Amino acid sequence: MATTGDMSPDEFREFGKAAVDFIADYIGNIRDRPVLPAVEPGYLAPLLPAECPQDPEPWQEVMKDLEAHIMPGVTHWHSPSFHAYFPTANSFPGIVGEMLSAGLGVIGFSWITSPACTELEVIVVDWLGKLLGLPEEFLHSGPGSGGGVIQGSASEATLVAMLAARDRMVRRVRQDHPKLSDGEIRAKLVAYTSDQANSSVWKSGLLGAMPMRQLPTDADGAFRGDVLEAAIRSDRQKGLIPCYVVATLGTTVTCAFDNLEELGPVCNREGLWLHIDAAYAGAAYVCPEMRHTMAGVQYADSFDMNPHKWLHVNFDCSTMWVKNANDLENAFNVDPVYLKHDKQGVMPDYRHWQLPLGRRFRALKLWMVLRTYGARGLQAHIRKQVQLAADFEELVHRDARFEVVMPARCGLVCFRMVGPCARTQELLRRVTARKTLYMIAASVRGQAVLRFVVCSRLTELEDVQRSWAEIAAQAEAVLQAESVAAALAPAPALCDPSRPMGKSPSVVHNMLGSAGNTADPQHTV
Amino acid sequence: MATTGDMSPDEFREFGKAAVDFIADYIGNIRDRPVLPAVEPGYLAPLLPAECPQDPEPWQEVMKDLEAHIMPGVTHWHSPSFHAYFPTANSFPGIVGEMLSAGLGVIGFSWITSPACTELEVIVVDWLGKLLGLPEEFLHSGPGSGGGVIQGSASEATLVAMLAARDRMVRRVRQDHPKLSDGEIRAKLVAYTSDQANSSVWKSGLLGAMPMRQLPTDADGAFRGDVLEAAIRSDRQKGLIPCYVVATLGTTVTCAFDNLEELGPVCNREGLWLHIDAAYAGAAYVCPEMRHTMAGVQYADSFDMNPHKWLHVNFDCSTMWVKNANDLENAFNVDPVYLKHDKQGVMPDYRHWQLPLGRRFRALKLWMVLRTYGARGLQAHIRKQVQLAADFEELVHRDARFEVVMPARCGLVCFRMVGPCARTQELLRRVTARKTLYMIAASVRGQAVLRFVVCSRLTELEDVQRSWAEIAAQAEAVLQAESVAAALAPAPALCDPSRPMGKSPSVVHNMLGSAGNTADPQHTV
Repeated sequence: MATTGDMSPDEFREFGKAAVDFIADYIGNIRDRPVLPAVEPGYLAPLLPAECPQDPEPWQEVMKDLEAHIMPGVTHWHSPSFHAYFPTANSFPGIVGEMLSAGLGVIGFSWITSPACTELEVIVVDWLGKLLGLPEEFLHSGPGSGGGVIQGSASEATLVAMLAARDRMVRRVRQDHPKLSDGEIRAKLVAYTSDQANSSVWKSGLLGAMPMRQLPTDADGAFRGDVLEAAIRSDRQKGLIPCYVVATLGTTVTCAFDNLEELGPVCNREGLWLHIDAAYAGAAYVCPEMRHTMAGVQYADSFDMNPHKWLHVNFDCSTMWVKNANDLENAFNVDPVYLKHDKQGVMPDYRHWQLPLGRRFRALKLWMVLRTYGARGLQAHIRKQVQLAADFEELVHRDARFEVVMPARCGLVCFRMVGPCARTQELLRRVTARKTLYMIAASVRGQAVLRFVVCSRLTELEDVQRSWAEIAAQAEAVLQAESVAAALAPAPALCDPSRPMGKSPSVVHNMLGSAGNTADPQHTV
Repeated sequence: MATTGDMSPDEFREFGKAAVDFIADYIGNIRDRPVLPAVEPGYLAPLLPAECPQDPEPWQEVMKDLEAHIMPGVTHWHSPSFHAYFPTANSFPGIVGEMLSAGLGVIGFSWITSPACTELEVIVVDWLGKLLGLPEEFLHSGPGSGGGVIQGSASEATLVAMLAARDRMVRRVRQDHPKLSDGEIRAKLVAYTSDQANSSVWKSGLLGAMPMRQLPTDADGAFRGDVLEAAIRSDRQKGLIPCYVVATLGTTVTCAFDNLEELGPVCNREGLWLHIDAAYAGAAYVCPEMRHTMAGVQYADSFDMNPHKWLHVNFDCSTMWVKNANDLENAFNVDPVYLKHDKQGVMPDYRHWQLPLGRRFRALKLWMVLRTYGARGLQAHIRKQVQLAADFEELVHRDARFEVVMPARCGLVCFRMVGPCARTQELLRRVTARKTLYMIAASVRGQAVLRFVVCSRLTELEDVQRSWAEIAAQAEAVLQAESVAAALAPAPALCDPSRPMGKSPSVVHNMLGSAGNTADPQHTV
């Protein structure tokens, strides 16, 4: 290696292929590693120097440190024993797509900066939109001015849609009330979502400075039309301006589906922008038999789902479709007028469809996955994981120590130990401490539940059975410990006996185990 | 390949290594390809099917289509003949870092979701901060509550800082004026930057709904303290609330440096948040002899630069440092109170430092680059490219048909043909049409100029000389054509004779060639 550290293409062949072998070995042997790491916060600093090296080091040294110091601190999201949050995709063609994108290293902020980067994206988001059964108004090849784009995350899609909705509403109100300043109009805008929406939806309200009402859901966790309508009416009476609604298909805690057939007509009639966050469950729509849960999608202004969750495309790849791309261009275009050029309009300049200016060639990985899996491969994946969740539910049903709180929806089952909530909490504490299985807890209708999600694409029935055996064994240990101790103190935060199990709107919040888990099932990453 | 499309680790070894060879060949032979593609908008759709395949296809077929259909539409950012915008990094260790990040596929939105992902980031942003000579208040290991984080882009960093500034100011004003609503306060906030700032800075004003004043710069393109002070005074007189300032180190068009020693004390005294956008030029500070241009950095609240521009780390990797991380946590934290856990505070939960929830393991590629290049390797890279720009400037100087408009700064030279602006425009048109060289035009003090940037890390003196020979040859052709034609019509948009060359504030805007280039030298991607 030269003193500048510059590597020749042949050195890269060796280094890159060693990295390919590292990844193949990692994924191939992932069952050998406990899913959760056994490190404490701050573990890494004492193992690494306090400063960057002065002179170039051989890559072999870095790879050694990767295994020695980094890998012990990795949580293994693709372990078949990872059942927390929601899946994050990881597939070999997705990885290669990412490699190729890094190798070409283009920045696709306009057509000329790499025509293929824009054009392949236009094509593959149309492919995917058709595969999901989206209305053709959302397609580039459709009749209107709609189309899709790859965002980095569902969080960004929610924020992009909100800012476009804000811009559209300010223009509209300004026409009727020319004396109001834009700032005065913006100060009156209100957004709506449900108490089941992902925290990133609430955060978008914070970022966009638009109050985001978290409206109550029905017993099933769904956001309903009458609730939205009442909230709009109440806000209009206060002189506020209802602007933006986020409906969720596949909520974070229980994978509930908001009722688009009720919400959609309310939004359309009242002139509110309807954004659909289908980050996780949207992938299921590659299977026609799953599409009944998105009935009403035609009312939406924008729709987002994450191929990087349940559709084999490595993070980051969140696909967002809009019915009218002009709404985005109006809100985000800062090009001086004299910069218009004759080729604009033929192809989208995607920098106006997103928050940042720069963008990677992410279409490559989506293309790679769609082609090497094909529609049938993706359908087979979804059906298999849905079946595995049903299998897990069946195991829970058969065990009298447990109860299913929410039947399997997509790849998720919510369950708990019969009896006091502390028992379920203690179960999670024990399971987590052993580090061989990763789930997170939540609260459903005032009760502590565990969320079991089929996450890794590598998960087989035997993995689910092994996870269940571990859960059952630890449950036995919990009961034995209980019979030794006279009593366990109840845990009020998780258990609220005043909250009925029945029909009234359930408040469902994410809960933490003691492992320092985040608040947030990774839904809208 | 199974009908599900699932690939075994051994199939991936073959596929991944073929991709490594593809990248090694691509970079190794990049001089063989014209830098600009010869396609027209819409070229790709007729070459690809209208729908995703039903059945899985072999990866070999996709790789064939990559070469046949995608590569002809790629703009080669790493060609030594790419002199447009600013550099985008592409190095072999950076690529491997991206591969490993994709292979591990972790989502680091909290410590537990992969401790190493958070902890390595904390360590390498400190390494880099020290390497750049940042004040220690910006380091995690420093005395206060400062620290660094990897954002996706400088655009996002500018917006994150703006939203944190907004939140801080709203809290502050609310204390003194409890009758004002948050919306009323926000409607009064104003931000300031210069007319030389990147379009992404202006866009952040649009996104954050805070008017972003584009203040005039001095003859050198720098934003000065007295101009800011006057603007603040004027806005306070109107009852507005000055809130946020973005200063640029290394502006997009001419690589000018705003005067931090003047701006900083104004911001501190007036209570405005000072953000420094050093997206491109920040990399130069790995060389101590370049640091004089950031004198005054100690006044800033936040500082951002892009290792993915000029420091060998593949896009996306934008490193942002703040003096007080609590400002970010206050603005972006939506965790319900009861979700606090005992390990919070020991390590940052980076989801509160950024817009989206999800985040890749980007620290791996920064770590890989810092170790395999070392401080000396990175310094050698910067010094070599600065020298190459000086070499180019010398070539321009020696040719009487040309003039240097802005002397070389970092890797950028602004130059033009002596005589009417139409001549320089025609030169660019000819050069671009031949597709062997890529530059973009700009307007400096009312004159058409060409920006020549040393971009690719592969660029050698011979490449610069070859690019110059091409420019000189096309200049000759322009002059010959002029002598044939009686006269060429002047192009008013690029040439404004009423604007003096001298001391008055120069308006410098990006200009487009006819090739459909973007407005925007890729500065804050």
